[in-house]
Amino acid sequence: MADLKSTFLKVYSVLKDELLQDPAFEFTDASRQWIERMLDYNVPGGKLNRGLSVIDSYKLLKEGKELTEDEIFLASVLGWCIEWLQAYFLVLDDIMDNSVTRRGQPCWFRVPKVGMIAVNDGVLLRNHIPRMLKKHFKGKPYYVDLLDLFNEVEFQTASGQMIDLITTIDGEKDLSKYALSLHRRIVQYKTAYYSFYLPVACALVMSGEDLEKHTVVKDILVQMGVYFQVQDDYLDCFGDPETIGKVGTDIEDFKCSWLVVKALELCNEDQKKLLHEAYGKPDPENVAKVKAIYKDLDLQGVFAEYESQSYAKLNASIEAHPNKSIQAVLKSFLGKIYKRQK
Amino acid sequence: MADLKSTFLKVYSVLKDELLQDPAFEFTDASRQWIERMLDYNVPGGKLNRGLSVIDSYKLLKEGKELTEDEIFLASVLGWCIEWLQAYFLVLDDIMDNSVTRRGQPCWFRVPKVGMIAVNDGVLLRNHIPRMLKKHFKGKPYYVDLLDLFNEVEFQTASGQMIDLITTIDGEKDLSKYALSLHRRIVQYKTAYYSFYLPVACALVMSGEDLEKHTVVKDILVQMGVYFQVQDDYLDCFGDPETIGKVGTDIEDFKCSWLVVKALELCNEDQKKLLHEAYGKPDPENVAKVKAIYKDLDLQGVFAEYESQSYAKLNASIEAHPNKSIQAVLKSFLGKIYKRQK
Ligand SMILES: [Mg+2]
Ligand SMILES: [Mg+2]
Ligand SMILES: [Mg+2]
Ligand SMILES: [Mg+2]
Ligand SMILES: [Mg+2]
Ligand SMILES: [Mg+2]
Repeated sequence: MADLKSTFLKVYSVLKDELLQDPAFEFTDASRQWIERMLDYNVPGGKLNRGLSVIDSYKLLKEGKELTEDEIFLASVLGWCIEWLQAYFLVLDDIMDNSVTRRGQPCWFRVPKVGMIAVNDGVLLRNHIPRMLKKHFKGKPYYVDLLDLFNEVEFQTASGQMIDLITTIDGEKDLSKYALSLHRRIVQYKTAYYSFYLPVACALVMSGEDLEKHTVVKDILVQMGVYFQVQDDYLDCFGDPETIGKVGTDIEDFKCSWLVVKALELCNEDQKKLLHEAYGKPDPENVAKVKAIYKDLDLQGVFAEYESQSYAKLNASIEAHPNKSIQAVLKSFLGKIYKRQK
Repeated sequence: MADLKSTFLKVYSVLKDELLQDPAFEFTDASRQWIERMLDYNVPGGKLNRGLSVIDSYKLLKEGKELTEDEIFLASVLGWCIEWLQAYFLVLDDIMDNSVTRRGQPCWFRVPKVGMIAVNDGVLLRNHIPRMLKKHFKGKPYYVDLLDLFNEVEFQTASGQMIDLITTIDGEKDLSKYALSLHRRIVQYKTAYYSFYLPVACALVMSGEDLEKHTVVKDILVQMGVYFQVQDDYLDCFGDPETIGKVGTDIEDFKCSWLVVKALELCNEDQKKLLHEAYGKPDPENVAKVKAIYKDLDLQGVFAEYESQSYAKLNASIEAHPNKSIQAVLKSFLGKIYKRQK
């Protein structure tokens, strides 16, 4: 596993070098240096789960057959395309959210002399994806499927981001909009497609599969992505900050979190009034009032129930799939997230 | 011609309606309204030259054969894809340049309640392009060529934007960087590919041509795009504000304009010192000093010489092309811009 990660990171260097020599553009020294620094700052510093899971999934689809070096390389390229996509979204998301830090360092747009140039850097990150795909997959029978796949998932992610942004426009903080249907839509589009479906879809395409025939796999992975985000929302409030590596601020940030949605569903009129008053305020007193309501409504119990039901449902859907190697891929994903504490 | 434009605008409505019903995303009412308003605000309000020239070029390639309704529609879709690409770049460029107005109205990010959501709106505009291409061209033998073409041109445009941005980082105003080679590079990548090459390339692809075999056409169009931008730089200072519809501010904005580059090339040491002191300052006295140097160096004469030489060279390249219908396309472009006053 440590070995897989180091192989994967070596591919990053190869891809970066190729991008810095792209013949479609005449780099100046300054622009080549800019791109290199921008890539190193934004692309490889995450957990790399999404990227690595392309290789894992492809292995499982090959049912234990040893992968060739070429196959490992190509699966890694697709993995990095997902990491590039994520970097693109995060760079722009941090600008839009006016965030301060990301992955333990200042957000890219806050780095001196970067500022709003980060918008174009986000665009460049996105543009690197088709450059890498063309370089390594042009001529393969599934090349156009990869282009379509990345295009569709990017569209869905940006659309999810849009509903997230327009439901939380400054000065229009309106808790009555928050319902489970909206939460599910934001989460499904903004996170689930690119984080859960895309890695497996890449592995399937590389295995020669037609994605049109795998809508069931897509549905299961999207459901898993929603479950993952509900966990994320839960841990933001009830997780151990030491373990998850940050102090949650969803309540202060007026986030459309699964917890507030559930609270609004279960509360009485007095509690609803209190929630409307206290949710989205920055001071600890109001945060404490919200958390007290969450506890009064036993959201920890409600979540435990949601978690076991989700797990059972996902497991049943996976078991019902006719293909054993695809079952293995899906089970591997589910196993990694079930009852996670971080 | 007025008829062509109204046909073209009807296709806009069709495309917008399709995007608002895209089955890849579950719109909420609010998000559907947001997109509609965002598209109407940003996409159709320009001169539409780039989009219309796809249809014009395709007609010329067909050598006078009457186009079918289907052909006109498809050429229009490609034309709108270019207009969408332009809208995407302009929305983001205005954010990065902190601009105030665009096409006679406030920049999109300055519209109340939009703000930084405009970053994601730019991303959505970009994402609409592959949605439109997939809807109308999937299954055509040249579908993948269209995807590759739009991807490459977008990459080149974003790369040109990058050198523009990093050579004018705030607090690093350094006139000594400005040279003809840098100017050419910015202009070629930021403007020429998408404004001149892309419309013709779309028409060629739709005609069944292999773009790999048309590098000469590409070179000519890119040269024309550079010439067009030099005119733009010239008119910014020496054009009639009534005619061009705006008062130029390239001097105040410290732009890497062809004029300042030529001035730096031709000036003596005293003039160079004066340019370094006065260029990029907002007050009319300094602007007047720069303009006085431009006049002393007879940049109007230098430009007239550049213009006639560019025209002669481009014309000769066009005449040398073996294909008469391609000659007609290129001549039509050149005819539209030669000695333009706006
Ligand atoms: Mg954020
Ligand atoms: Mg956000
Ligand atoms: Mg969270
Ligand atoms: Mg601008
Ligand atoms: Mg600009
Ligand atoms: Mg100009």
